[in-house]
Formats: sequence, C-alpha cells, structure tokens
Amino acid sequence: MPRTSIATVCLSGTLSEKLDAAAAAGFDGVEIFEPDLIASAARPDELARTVAQRGLTIDLYQPFRDLDSVDPGRFARNLIRLERKFDLMDQLGCDLLLVCSSPSADAVTDDARLSDQLAAAAAIARRRGKRIAYEALAWGAHVSDYRHAARLVATVDDPALGNCLDSFHILSRGDDPSAIADLAPGSIFFLQLADAPMMSMDVLQWSRHHRCLPGQGNFDLGGFIRSVQAAGYDGPWSLEVFSDIFRHADPTRTARDAHRSLRYLSELGAGSPDTDSPDAGSVVSVRVAAGPVLAPKVAETLSHIGFDLQGVDSGTGLQLYRDAGLAVVVDPTAGTVWTAPGVDPDMPTIAQIGVRSDHPASWAQRAAAYDVPVAPVSAPGTDGNADEVVRLDVTDTLAIDLRAEASAADWQERFDLVPRRTVEPASLVTGVDHVGIGIGTADWEGAMLLLRSVFGMSVDDGLDLPDAVGTMRSQALTMPTSSGATVRIVASLVPNQLDTRGPLRRRGGLTHVAFECADIVETARACRARGLRALSIPDNYYDDLAARFDLSDTMIDGMRSLGILYDADADGGEFFHFFTPTIGEDLFFEVVCRRGGYRGYGEANSAVRVAAELHRRAVAEV
Amino acid sequence: MPRTSIATVCLSGTLSEKLDAAAAAGFDGVEIFEPDLIASAARPDELARTVAQRGLTIDLYQPFRDLDSVDPGRFARNLIRLERKFDLMDQLGCDLLLVCSSPSADAVTDDARLSDQLAAAAAIARRRGKRIAYEALAWGAHVSDYRHAARLVATVDDPALGNCLDSFHILSRGDDPSAIADLAPGSIFFLQLADAPMMSMDVLQWSRHHRCLPGQGNFDLGGFIRSVQAAGYDGPWSLEVFSDIFRHADPTRTARDAHRSLRYLSELGAGSPDTDSPDAGSVVSVRVAAGPVLAPKVAETLSHIGFDLQGVDSGTGLQLYRDAGLAVVVDPTAGTVWTAPGVDPDMPTIAQIGVRSDHPASWAQRAAAYDVPVAPVSAPGTDGNADEVVRLDVTDTLAIDLRAEASAADWQERFDLVPRRTVEPASLVTGVDHVGIGIGTADWEGAMLLLRSVFGMSVDDGLDLPDAVGTMRSQALTMPTSSGATVRIVASLVPNQLDTRGPLRRRGGLTHVAFECADIVETARACRARGLRALSIPDNYYDDLAARFDLSDTMIDGMRSLGILYDADADGGEFFHFFTPTIGEDLFFEVVCRRGGYRGYGEANSAVRVAAELHRRAVAEV
Repeated sequence: MPRTSIATVCLSGTLSEKLDAAAAAGFDGVEIFEPDLIASAARPDELARTVAQRGLTIDLYQPFRDLDSVDPGRFARNLIRLERKFDLMDQLGCDLLLVCSSPSADAVTDDARLSDQLAAAAAIARRRGKRIAYEALAWGAHVSDYRHAARLVATVDDPALGNCLDSFHILSRGDDPSAIADLAPGSIFFLQLADAPMMSMDVLQWSRHHRCLPGQGNFDLGGFIRSVQAAGYDGPWSLEVFSDIFRHADPTRTARDAHRSLRYLSELGAGSPDTDSPDAGSVVSVRVAAGPVLAPKVAETLSHIGFDLQGVDSGTGLQLYRDAGLAVVVDPTAGTVWTAPGVDPDMPTIAQIGVRSDHPASWAQRAAAYDVPVAPVSAPGTDGNADEVVRLDVTDTLAIDLRAEASAADWQERFDLVPRRTVEPASLVTGVDHVGIGIGTADWEGAMLLLRSVFGMSVDDGLDLPDAVGTMRSQALTMPTSSGATVRIVASLVPNQLDTRGPLRRRGGLTHVAFECADIVETARACRARGLRALSIPDNYYDDLAARFDLSDTMIDGMRSLGILYDADADGGEFFHFFTPTIGEDLFFEVVCRRGGYRGYGEANSAVRVAAELHRRAVAEV
Repeated sequence: MPRTSIATVCLSGTLSEKLDAAAAAGFDGVEIFEPDLIASAARPDELARTVAQRGLTIDLYQPFRDLDSVDPGRFARNLIRLERKFDLMDQLGCDLLLVCSSPSADAVTDDARLSDQLAAAAAIARRRGKRIAYEALAWGAHVSDYRHAARLVATVDDPALGNCLDSFHILSRGDDPSAIADLAPGSIFFLQLADAPMMSMDVLQWSRHHRCLPGQGNFDLGGFIRSVQAAGYDGPWSLEVFSDIFRHADPTRTARDAHRSLRYLSELGAGSPDTDSPDAGSVVSVRVAAGPVLAPKVAETLSHIGFDLQGVDSGTGLQLYRDAGLAVVVDPTAGTVWTAPGVDPDMPTIAQIGVRSDHPASWAQRAAAYDVPVAPVSAPGTDGNADEVVRLDVTDTLAIDLRAEASAADWQERFDLVPRRTVEPASLVTGVDHVGIGIGTADWEGAMLLLRSVFGMSVDDGLDLPDAVGTMRSQALTMPTSSGATVRIVASLVPNQLDTRGPLRRRGGLTHVAFECADIVETARACRARGLRALSIPDNYYDDLAARFDLSDTMIDGMRSLGILYDADADGGEFFHFFTPTIGEDLFFEVVCRRGGYRGYGEANSAVRVAAELHRRAVAEV
C-alpha cells in the first residue's frame, strides 16, 4: 500500500470529528481544507499538535484560488495573500499548497505571462521553504487540461513548483491519462483521487456534489493509477471527494470505506481485483426471510416454478426447497432476521445469497485484508468453519455466503427430509440468472464498494427507470466465475433516511430472484401446469411490441397467452421473461431466458411489471 | 381561467389513480402519455369511456418520436407506425398527436426535405381526421428552437399540422419567447407548461428529472404566458412536468397543487400576483412551540436580546414576550402543537409567523380562490373572526397568520400581565429581518407554490450551502409590503422520507428568527449587558476576514470581541450579524444589520455558525 491521505472536506462533522475518523480508519495523513480551518476553534498551531497526536501528518493545505490575474494590481495583492497563507502553513507545519488554475474572468490567457506569474509565486514559495502543487481545474478559464498545466510547470522549472493530478478533473473531461507516465520524474507533487458516476451535467456541479470513492463510480481509475505509477510517483494517494451523501453521513464509516477504496485502487494498479479474487462459482442457494403468515405463500409460489419442499430443520424451523442443484431456504419464523423496531416480520425478502466456492477460507482472508468482518456461520453441511462457509454482510439485512456446494447428503444431515418419499426434481429452472436487491441511501456507497472490491464485481452504467411508483436508480454488477457462469446482482437504490435500517420495500415489489431456463415457452407452460398464475401483462403491451419489433403474430400471441415479456438489443440479443405475483410487499420471482448474447435485464419492461402488479392488487381488493 | 389539462406522466400511481386525481383536482382534460397506456390493463376504448365518466377529455396523445429520417425505408416504416397510432387514437377518441423533433442520428438536417416529410405525415393525419402538434425538443438534432419548428409548420401549410409550445423546451435554452406573439393565428395547436429550478446541467437530464410546476421554479413563466396570450391561443393550458419527486408523491396532492399552479399562471398572465394581493405589512409576531423543559431557556434567550415577559394566558399557558412593536409568544405546554408520533415536544421551533394586515378577510378570499383552506383562529385582540385574523398552513407544523396589529390593550385583554409593573421596552431590535424555516422533501414543492401564489412572494436563485452537517439547499423568498418593509423567508430543504411528518431538525440548528437593529455593535453590547453570550466565532474566521476584505484592524477586533460576522456584496452592500446559541435541537435567534442595500443573508457565514454551534456543544459536554 502507498501512503494514504484524505481531504477533510470528504468527511462530515467538525474538524475534530473528521480527524478522529481519519485516524481511526488508518490513514497516514490529511489534506486540510481551508473552510474547515476557518470554522474551527483550534488555532493553526494547536491544530498541528492535535493532528500529530492522532498519528497523522498534514500533507497539503488547500485550496489557493485565482492566483493569476490580467490585472497587475490584483496579482500583486494575490501574492500578498499567498504570503499570508504561507504564514498560516508555518504554524500548521505543512509545506505543500494546492494552487488551482483560475476559472475567473480575469485569468491570464497568455502562457508566457501565466508562467511568469507562476514563477513569481514559486520564487516566494522557495524563499519561504514551501512548495506549490499546481492543478488544472476541469472548468479552468484558460488551463483546464493537466498536460497544459504540466507544460507551464516545466517552463517555470522551479523546484518549488510541481503538478497536482486529480483523477476527477482529468477523467471527467474524458482526457487520456496515459501522458501522465511521461511527466518528468519528481514533477508530480501530489495526487488526488475520486471516482464519479457517469452523468451528463455541468462539470462543476458534478464535481461539487456527486464525486464518490474509487470503486463506487464509473471512471477507469485502474488505467489512471497505472499511468501515475509509471511516472514513478511515490507520494501519498489522497482522496478528495465532494459528496452530498458523505457530507451528511457518519464520518467514521465514510473514512473506513475511504481507506478500503485505496486498497482497492492499489489492486487495480497492480492488475485487476478479480485476478486476486479466490475462486467462485454460480449462485447455488438463496435464503428468504418470510415470517409465519406469508411463508406458505412463498412456498406455494416456489412450488409453482419447480421447487419442492425437501426438508425442515427441526431446530430452527427453516424449510428447504430444492430443484436440481438449487436450494431455497425459507425462514418462516418471525423476528429471527430483523430486530429493527417498526420492521414488519411478515415482509418476505431475500436475506442471504449463497455463492459456491471451493475455498471459502481464501475469501475470509481477502475480506480481512479489506478490514471487512466475516463470521463463521452455521450452514447446511458445515460446522460453521471458515473452511466451509464465509458470510459477508452487504447491508444490515442481506449477506452473501461463499460456501462449498452442499451435497444431497449434506442437506439431509441438516434438514429432516419431509416428505420422506423422494421427490423427482422438476428441473424447470437451470440456475440463478440474477438476484435483484434494494439498497437504501445510507448503505448504497458502502455496498457498491464491497461488491466491487472484495468480490471484484464489474459495473455497467447505471440506469434511471421511471415507473408508476417513482424513478428507480438501478445498477447491475457482474462477476465472472471459474465455472464460466456469471454471478449477476441488480441493485436498486431505495431512497430512505440515513438513519433508517431494516429491509426496504417499494410499492409493487423490488427484491427478486430471477431463475434461468432453457426454453421460456415450455417452462412457462410447465409452471402453469404446476399452478402458477403468472403476472398478467396488458394487451396494450403486446400491441406496442408488435409496433416496435419485427415479431410474428404467432410468437406475440404465444407470449401474450403466457404473460411472457420481451426485449432485444441492437446486436440481435433477445431476452424473454415472466414474473410471479409479488408476495407480501416486496418479493417476487422471475424466470428468464437469454439468447444471442443479450446482456441486459429487460429493463424496458420494468414499468410494465410494476403497473401489472399494482393492477393485480387493485383488482384483488375489489 | 383557461381550460386546464395535465399529462398523466406528471402523476404517480396507476393510470386509474392518475385519472382519479386529475378529476378530483378539477382539471378539464388530460394528455395520455404512451407508457401509461401500454402498462394499463384498460384497452383504449375502455380508457376513453372511463376518462369521460370522470368528466375529463383526452386532449393529446403523446409522444410520437423520431418521425423524420434520412433513411427512406425507415421513414416509410415510421409512417406505418403513425397509422397504427391513429388507429389507437380512433379508439381513444382523441384527435391530436404530439410529434417531437428528432434527437436521433438519422434525423433529417435539410429543411426542405424535413418539411416534405412533415407534409407527408400531415396528409395522413388530415385523411384520418387527426391533427399533429409539432414540438421542438430542446435537444433535437436539427430542430431545437420553437421558431425553427414554426417556420417548418408554416412551410408545410397544412391545416392538420400546427405547433406545440412547451415552456421548458423554450426557456431552458434561454430562448426569447416574445416571437410566440407573432405566430400565425390558429397555428398553435397545443401548449405545455412546466417550470424548473435554474440548474447547470445537461438539458435532457434537467428535463426528465427536475421539472416542476409553475411557481415552484425559476423560469419567467409570466413573460412566456403573456406571449402565448398575445398570439390569440385559446386552447387548453396543459402541465407536462417530469419530476422524480412527483413520480413518487401522492397524486391527489400533486394534482391539487398542479391545478393551483395554473391559476397562479393565469394571474401572471394578467399581470403579477402581487398586484392582486391584499395589503400586508411587516412581520409583527412569532409563536414558538417550546415545551415545558426548554421554554425557560427560550425565555432567557429572548430576554438577552431585549424581550421581556409581559403576560401569560391563564387559559392556555401561552407566554407573551415583547419588545417595542414585536411580540413573541412562547408555548411552554407539551403536545399542544405536534401530535405526530415520535415527535419530541421539547424541540423549540417556530410554529407561526404573524404578518400585519388591515384586511385579513381579503386574504381569506384570496386563499379560497386557490382552494387553500383557512380557518378562523383565536388570537390576541380578536374573536377568531376572518375579519381579524386568517391562518394559512405552510406545512403541518408552520402557519402564517395575516392579522390586524394588536394594540397593547388588545394584548392585555388576552394575556394577564405578569409582572404587573410596566416594563420599559428595551428597544434593542427594530423589526424582523427574516425568518428561517426548514421544510421537508414532501412539503417543499407545495410550500413554494403557496408562498409564491397566495402570498405573491418572489424568489431569488436558490443556493447550495455545504457545512459540517451536510449540504443545505436554501431558497430566499421576499414579499414587498404596503409599509415599505419587506417580509423575508429563508426556506431550507431538509431531506426526509416522503411520509415523515412533524417538525424538522438539523444538527447545529436551522429554524431561526433574525431581528433587525440599527447599530450592530451597540446592540451586541446591550445584549451582552443583558446577559447574552453570543455564539463564539473562531479567531481563524477573523484572520480570513482580514485576508478577504479591506477592513480596519479596529473594526475586525470590534467584531471579534462581540462575535459579529460580516459579509459584503459586489455593489458595496454590507451585512453584520451575530447569533444566539441554539436552544434544544433546532431554534436560534439572530440579530442583523444591513447597510448600503445588501440583499443577501450572510450565507457565506452559515457554515461558520454551524461549526461554532457544534463546537459549543462539544465543549459543553466535556
């Protein structure tokens, strides 16, 4: 790991709370953000002492804005202002100042004159024993490209002037970071790191409100950091994340995730996190927390799509449903899963996803390296030993287990087989295509980082999906596995208060398991024969399908009669799927079939499913 | 009022719930948004019947996208698609289709060819007894300006082709709407209306997520609607508001506000709402809901800034504090104000603001015209008669009273004077400069509309203010009064769940009354003499002030010793203010002094106040 640093602006709270959080998370240093200092009751020299007492260094003071000016009088005043900041930095015991390129109307627009002004500032810095790290703001009036800033630094050629590289300012513009590798050795004074979701918006607003930690957004930070490493930079890796979420969140939690994000980034720098990941197979089990009232309804729906009750754990009452190699464990007890006040124990939802692994203990080691707690758990066919199963909490109410695949004998050992007669597997579904989960505002960033870092999952671009209930922010994550299967999770953001805990719900349902099948029509018919009344899809939908796609009337009529929905991508990939009704407030099951390399999730049909579910309920209520 | 219409996309819920909400709010018609139809179980002919049964008409079907194409084969298929949509409209009983200019890569970029394609579509429409309203999307590939679209419509010159004007698409581009007045009579087929907050972002994202109702944003809709009226347009005024908030909100409430917003807009069209507003004077009273534990602390703080206890209402226990012409009524009882579960009755906050008016009954009439409920209330010097006092609820926990100014005798009649001796008014403060209130996510849009419409308040651009606790969205509203004073409210958005009710809090405090004074130093000294320990402002702040402004050391030292903060604007206006500590979780008082026409609120100091308050509490806890 490189030296780690974090800007105080990343964290919520008073300056004292921010420093406590950074130290507790294991950071080596901090950048002091000027507004934090101004609002602090601690004088700069006191601050220097308390920072040192916490085992931290002050790596940078920032920002110094609008240094250069076409107005000579103003530039002269700016140099006086610079001297004052150096006075302050003397007390802080910090020698490095961040100077941003000017976004002002009076910014110098002539490179020769600008390098003269930078040289004048560098001379003062040198005399004062200070150094200036010059950074191209993405919205700088004249200098907005890091290569332009670096040319100016090279022209000035003063040991007191170097470059500050900020991943946001470079990648938000779509600039190629590879030229960083060619910067003169030692000319990079500082490195600031932030990720961000891809957004089409004014870059200043994007920067000030929507940055996030490496591993939480969509920038190619791996390519960026490899260029920085190629340049021979060996200073601190410092996070500078302006985020409306983090400004409000628990700083201890943010700082801990921030430190993890730098470990993730160092893995990206060394290669790719999935090359370091232990083996994983496909999703082999799901645990549904159901509660006593709706557990029978969950069981009935599972039966409709091919799952049969195989056993009951006499100790806990857990029910085992299986089809072929898949296991769904239903927890019909109340209150064993959620203890948060106000949580309805009768809201069936997914509590745990089981991913096959031959070496769970390697996952435990990997999690420990990220300071993510794991606990040995009691699971079928195991002694609760980390060699056999490892559980990681994605949120307070959802865990992922890495576990050896339990054999039929293993399951039998744990569950009393009921009924005693052997049930022939229906073999309707062949595996888990994806799992859909809801994550609240407070948990979103942390969960994304966990799935990206520890699990090495990749992200597609996120989607905003409007429907009858609201606009749903959806993010698909995928993990290739050693078996050639892909573990897919579709996470949806459920806005909630930052202090709300417990399982989330969304009108019309959100959490789901999508099982894959080989033939959608045959499977839909077999499910119907087992009693399924698939969610009824409106005729208007099929009329529109006929207008949008070149599909035969026979095919459309076939889908119409079975409630099958359809999507196709630009490359000829096709997606067929149908839904069970939602059980309780949140949970449903889906059966899908992919053809021709289709990579999506039928998102265009998501609003149709929600409306159909609301309609079903309205009719049922009459 | 013109005929009113609303697009189904504005409202949350199923299509049936949307139609119910539109009918209940008093709309004359609806636009049917295609995705709502596709997801609906009602066939188009059934939908036509249920719309008519609700007393509504279907004014428009929309949208038809990407009509024109440089690919002749695709254009031919588009015309077939058009025929299919006309089939559907036959069943809907709707004759008007919205066609948007194409944002596609295959859009026609030659006006002659484009008008040929529009003419072909218009000919089909004419044959089918339909009409096409052509709209320039702000992000159209070739046609993005309404004047360009209108030239094409004029060139085609077919009675089946006309213009659709959308205020968002015109005003978001900064286009001048005045040329609308010159459009040919009858060429405007349809009018879509939306407001929006000023945002620097990609216009498509802005349009799809952040539109709002007229009177909730920052567009000049008055100028826009007057141009439309000058063109002789007499069709429906239809709201088309894509909003992530409304997609999630109660549709009945949204529809009611939507209908009000069109009334507001018709007032803007006729002139300006404040010309229709009854008289109002300055803020003369404030009621603080305090609860029994912290009421004495509120009283003590009021005493420090010049207010003295004048009486107690023996019936309710309300306490009257006065200075000069101002009255602050403190409610020390628990539970008389908030009944929401989980609400701390001991969180002092502002429950009511009293604005002087000689004719409260005129306000009652104005509120009734907006379908805003008013209730006669019992208040000092009144019989609870609308001639004397009218109360309007801004949120569940905050009301504004319009009331005749109570004389000393009036107050005496209601309150038993305690102590009996006459207290000489301290006369430290001269009036209320502004009131700071918190509004939750669920109430924000409705409260903005109420303050803008019924009260005729004007808005400045909103601000995002980052501080130690988060980023605060702040919106100042002002109302000029007949007395020459200005009523100012600074509203801050407190993110909460849409179903949360009750008073809001923000760490460090948010709700406040800012009193004005003539001399800030003299007043601060007098307050100190009365026992005030003003919020302590860090020395670092004054060091920074010296670096930023050209102020004398004497002046800075004077402010430092009294905890006075400072701001100045570009035109030489100056602002001086100091703060009391926050009482409980939310409420504080501020004393301010404006000089030289300063129009702001010292927002730059807001983060310093929050940090100082958090520091005060941390020290007090040690």
